[in-house]
Amino acid sequence: MIRIGIIGYGYWGPNVTRNFNAVNDCQVAMICDSSPQCLRRAQQTYPSVKVTSEASEVTSSPAIDAVAIVTPVWTHFDLAKAALENGKHVFVEKPFTSNAAQARQLIELAARKKLQIMVDHTFLFTGAVRKIRQLIDEGALGKLYYYDSTRVNLGLFQHDVNVIWDLAPHDLSIMDYLVRKKPESLSASGQIHLNGFEDLAYITIYFSDNVIAHINVNWLSPVKVRTTLIGGEKKMVVWNDLEADEKVKVYDKGVEVQNGSGVHQLLVSYRSGDMWAPKVDSTEALAAEARYFVDCVQKNERPFNDGVAGLRVVSLLEAADRSLEKKGNPVKL
Amino acid sequence: MIRIGIIGYGYWGPNVTRNFNAVNDCQVAMICDSSPQCLRRAQQTYPSVKVTSEASEVTSSPAIDAVAIVTPVWTHFDLAKAALENGKHVFVEKPFTSNAAQARQLIELAARKKLQIMVDHTFLFTGAVRKIRQLIDEGALGKLYYYDSTRVNLGLFQHDVNVIWDLAPHDLSIMDYLVRKKPESLSASGQIHLNGFEDLAYITIYFSDNVIAHINVNWLSPVKVRTTLIGGEKKMVVWNDLEADEKVKVYDKGVEVQNGSGVHQLLVSYRSGDMWAPKVDSTEALAAEARYFVDCVQKNERPFNDGVAGLRVVSLLEAADRSLEKKGNPVKL
Amino acid sequence: MIRIGIIGYGYWGPNVTRNFNAVNDCQVAMICDSSPQCLRRAQQTYPSVKVTSEASEVTSSPAIDAVAIVTPVWTHFDLAKAALENGKHVFVEKPFTSNAAQARQLIELAARKKLQIMVDHTFLFTGAVRKIRQLIDEGALGKLYYYDSTRVNLGLFQHDVNVIWDLAPHDLSIMDYLVRKKPESLSASGQIHLNGFEDLAYITIYFSDNVIAHINVNWLSPVKVRTTLIGGEKKMVVWNDLEADEKVKVYDKGVEVQNGSGVHQLLVSYRSGDMWAPKVDSTEALAAEARYFVDCVQKNERPFNDGVAGLRVVSLLEAADRSLEKKGNPVKL
Amino acid sequence: MIRIGIIGYGYWGPNVTRNFNAVNDCQVAMICDSSPQCLRRAQQTYPSVKVTSEASEVTSSPAIDAVAIVTPVWTHFDLAKAALENGKHVFVEKPFTSNAAQARQLIELAARKKLQIMVDHTFLFTGAVRKIRQLIDEGALGKLYYYDSTRVNLGLFQHDVNVIWDLAPHDLSIMDYLVRKKPESLSASGQIHLNGFEDLAYITIYFSDNVIAHINVNWLSPVKVRTTLIGGEKKMVVWNDLEADEKVKVYDKGVEVQNGSGVHQLLVSYRSGDMWAPKVDSTEALAAEARYFVDCVQKNERPFNDGVAGLRVVSLLEAADRSLEKKGNPVKL
Repeated sequence: MIRIGIIGYGYWGPNVTRNFNAVNDCQVAMICDSSPQCLRRAQQTYPSVKVTSEASEVTSSPAIDAVAIVTPVWTHFDLAKAALENGKHVFVEKPFTSNAAQARQLIELAARKKLQIMVDHTFLFTGAVRKIRQLIDEGALGKLYYYDSTRVNLGLFQHDVNVIWDLAPHDLSIMDYLVRKKPESLSASGQIHLNGFEDLAYITIYFSDNVIAHINVNWLSPVKVRTTLIGGEKKMVVWNDLEADEKVKVYDKGVEVQNGSGVHQLLVSYRSGDMWAPKVDSTEALAAEARYFVDCVQKNERPFNDGVAGLRVVSLLEAADRSLEKKGNPVKL
Repeated sequence: MIRIGIIGYGYWGPNVTRNFNAVNDCQVAMICDSSPQCLRRAQQTYPSVKVTSEASEVTSSPAIDAVAIVTPVWTHFDLAKAALENGKHVFVEKPFTSNAAQARQLIELAARKKLQIMVDHTFLFTGAVRKIRQLIDEGALGKLYYYDSTRVNLGLFQHDVNVIWDLAPHDLSIMDYLVRKKPESLSASGQIHLNGFEDLAYITIYFSDNVIAHINVNWLSPVKVRTTLIGGEKKMVVWNDLEADEKVKVYDKGVEVQNGSGVHQLLVSYRSGDMWAPKVDSTEALAAEARYFVDCVQKNERPFNDGVAGLRVVSLLEAADRSLEKKGNPVKL
Repeated sequence: MIRIGIIGYGYWGPNVTRNFNAVNDCQVAMICDSSPQCLRRAQQTYPSVKVTSEASEVTSSPAIDAVAIVTPVWTHFDLAKAALENGKHVFVEKPFTSNAAQARQLIELAARKKLQIMVDHTFLFTGAVRKIRQLIDEGALGKLYYYDSTRVNLGLFQHDVNVIWDLAPHDLSIMDYLVRKKPESLSASGQIHLNGFEDLAYITIYFSDNVIAHINVNWLSPVKVRTTLIGGEKKMVVWNDLEADEKVKVYDKGVEVQNGSGVHQLLVSYRSGDMWAPKVDSTEALAAEARYFVDCVQKNERPFNDGVAGLRVVSLLEAADRSLEKKGNPVKL
Repeated sequence: MIRIGIIGYGYWGPNVTRNFNAVNDCQVAMICDSSPQCLRRAQQTYPSVKVTSEASEVTSSPAIDAVAIVTPVWTHFDLAKAALENGKHVFVEKPFTSNAAQARQLIELAARKKLQIMVDHTFLFTGAVRKIRQLIDEGALGKLYYYDSTRVNLGLFQHDVNVIWDLAPHDLSIMDYLVRKKPESLSASGQIHLNGFEDLAYITIYFSDNVIAHINVNWLSPVKVRTTLIGGEKKMVVWNDLEADEKVKVYDKGVEVQNGSGVHQLLVSYRSGDMWAPKVDSTEALAAEARYFVDCVQKNERPFNDGVAGLRVVSLLEAADRSLEKKGNPVKL
């Protein structure tokens, strides 16, 4: 039985709590929030769980094996450090930390303490992303060409981070999980209109093997879009996360180039075949992730979405901020 | 009566010819193409029009008042120069020229000769673009925030230019027509996968007054997308050129930020109202443009899509190529 | 304070309970279900509410002012009768009763006892239906031509009624609310494929003033459709209930016919203008309806969705069954 | 070489002419229309083809082997009769004739004269319909349950027939081609609003083996819809003819019913799998049909879309009119 303490019961915390609560071999042992109103809600839903407004109660309690940190990013480092130092495994919201140095420190600390860190990149546990990963692993797409994601909608403006730190961690973690090439360079552009933080931004990441990724995030769009195009030599994928069914569409389309006899004789031919929308598992992603965290803790195994994976995303976010400041200036990775 | 000679009767030439032929006070007097097959097609459709394989016949004919140049971009400069030197007005395909120096030379030449140059930025004559321009002019959108355009599909790969020179002139000319701010800096990224030219690319343009534009062009997309988002303080526009009806949707949505009392007290509020799809004129854009060219020539008036407008687009294309080479390095404009 | 007892805590009952529970001046006083498992769920969510497996406990309790009947249609009559006889107001699921005779008996009983009956035609409380009603009331659509609704999806097969009694009550109650003409005749067709009940059916209703309505319901469709077209002389409406935003679209389109001089000289002209998607209130319909029920009970006022409205729908369902049996034979109404 | 005469050069005639003109072994020998303006257009496009305003010139010319009749339906019988009597094969627009008696007479006449009749049910030659037919033939859909088609848009009002005779021949011929069961009974309903002809109508056709078909046609819809649902035991098809790509989608969805132990124990289970959009041939249907007509004439073989196929559609149209008159009264077939 893994006893888990939850820190943060605002927007996402209740989902994390509900899902850990539903995992066999797992028990939510304490819930912490600084807001009395949030604590009341927690108490109402889980009358038998202890609540507290002091995070240190959670991180230091001997009755707790693991801590789920569901708070703003600037608090992650201190909370995770305290938890690890007290021998607790850590489940932490994305983005992992406010900067790469913090991430490295936590990774090192966890390793020394033989504890696990899992960064909550929830999308990696959706049926859609797992299906696309499977298609890539099977070689269905062939050599990868590009990953192009759009994540735009109206609001919600964040008060402590720009749109990149708010929305792009989703895309960066999915891209990291699917592309699996070495990112070599990054260019980001964006603009501030309202509250002092970039409210829209565009990120390009150059990978080895001519793979390129692009991410378009925007808090100021009149329409909601959640669409990712993935181009491969053999097949291409369109993932529209707003579709009720048929989120993933696989296109048997492609381009082939042959050398002709003359200098200007590049012959480009197009192939266009069937489209196929594989059935995608619709289990709640967070349920699968919570189950997986408990498994990893029980077996003391390293999750694939560990601190190192979290660090890769944070490093890209840091690079994006640096490039953004200089209007697209490329940053070596 | 304006007598017009057409140079280039491949893909777009027949459309240009058909539309000039339908303009009152205009007569297609000669058609030129280097391909005998294209000339045969021209002759069949217009049995009474003289055809030739020699462009110089067109540019030097005393029986011709204006020349329409519908050939690959690398030929524009020489053809336009010959036409202007022989006292003919010029209608030329986009992009205007291969570089800004050529564009400037032609503009100067036309001014000296008191002749008109019109660059065929056809989209500026569509009902959709004219409606959006009208909305902006009326102040319906309020202060402009951003212009974000996506123009992707499978093929057609060009053999002499990259995807930016092929597709982005549309977006850049529309952006230039709608945004009307000073572009200050540009960053472009992209990748080559197949035939030695970038087949996908992303361009960001920073304007004065915090306006930002972004253009996503791609020859390797499994789906066709032609969507532009325009965000303003008061209203926002989504233009989907692939919709049969309702191409332009105007959203009464917005974000307002008020200063609260404390330092971190920025209050962001969201407004969400009706959506409205104004009826858009569905006249063929090229018909309106051909009519306008003839008018400008007859009155010897400068068209708004003149050589200078063409130069602005070419300058942005040149800057994009320079930035692309250095993976997003910003280029001052 | 209105004390309400809920009978039926299966699929819809929890929603009814939650919404009545949230109404000021209303208290859920008892919950009844024959399934121990459902009762446990009720108890867990509402620890302070009395639960019972005996409906008679609810209908006869002196501590209860009104009864919400959220059970299969064949039980409605007996439960409603018992409640009314014991002096309780009745909120009852659609369809009101299994036949018109039962409906009339309950209406008469409620009148005698000076009690209110409300039939849960939830859709009448959605922002979309209220907006369309408002447009019709304002005369925006002009003279009404037709109402054409499609409600199809895969499953859920019912075990006690055919697809008409399952799905069409929604459409019939909305149609009744919007059209407000006298239905004169009905024709229904359909087919049984699997479990002895029609799993798809088509209903046409002829109204006075040449208004016609059509309803397409289907349990065997691979795709989910919830679309209603409403044609008027001046404007036309498309209501797509599956759209996240812009559920209601109003088209400024129409047809005009003028008499020309000759016999065959009917001149038909088409008008095509803007489309407009008014913002639609997104409050949960059942919340508004629960609030309205409590108001009606407190003021002892007749709701517009009263027993008589329920009877109109049941009469159409009965007529549909009669026509269905004879493969479309028209039934006078 | 088959020499063909075209009667009728209005809306559809130019397409028929263009396609026959492009068939090898076929020559358009004469074009007839009563309108001088139409004849001028014909002459311009086909300077070497003889034109005439007298249909009898076509039907009696010894220089013509086959006649294409592209005129209003009420003229079909006389023209086809004259052509057949003069020994010419007949290609005739849908619907074949104004009534079944005429159709039977023409079929009998053609048989006696050993001539071919082909009714222009163009949709049967589209890639979409041929693909669906192939899926049905292969047994991919399993036992057929239903065919449900919607064909609605604004206008064009016809002056001589109602919306059923205008639009439903498409659906009825496709249904006839795909369903291949015996139609047993038909019910039709509809309404007249503007010019004395029904402008919207609903048709249900009962077939043997519990197959049912439904057709919704409407001249008064603000939106254009061309969607057909085909439900089978194993798979289901949605054909959306307005999609640019992916017109045909095949859903691996279904319902299974098992008998449980008790009386009310019908167990319904749902199956939901992949969706698949097979690539569909995009050749112009009329080109394939024209080619096929010339083949049939040359080999003197009976086409599958012969007079008998045309008669089946006309019989359904007649039955629909009879049912319509009595507001849905079923008509035995």
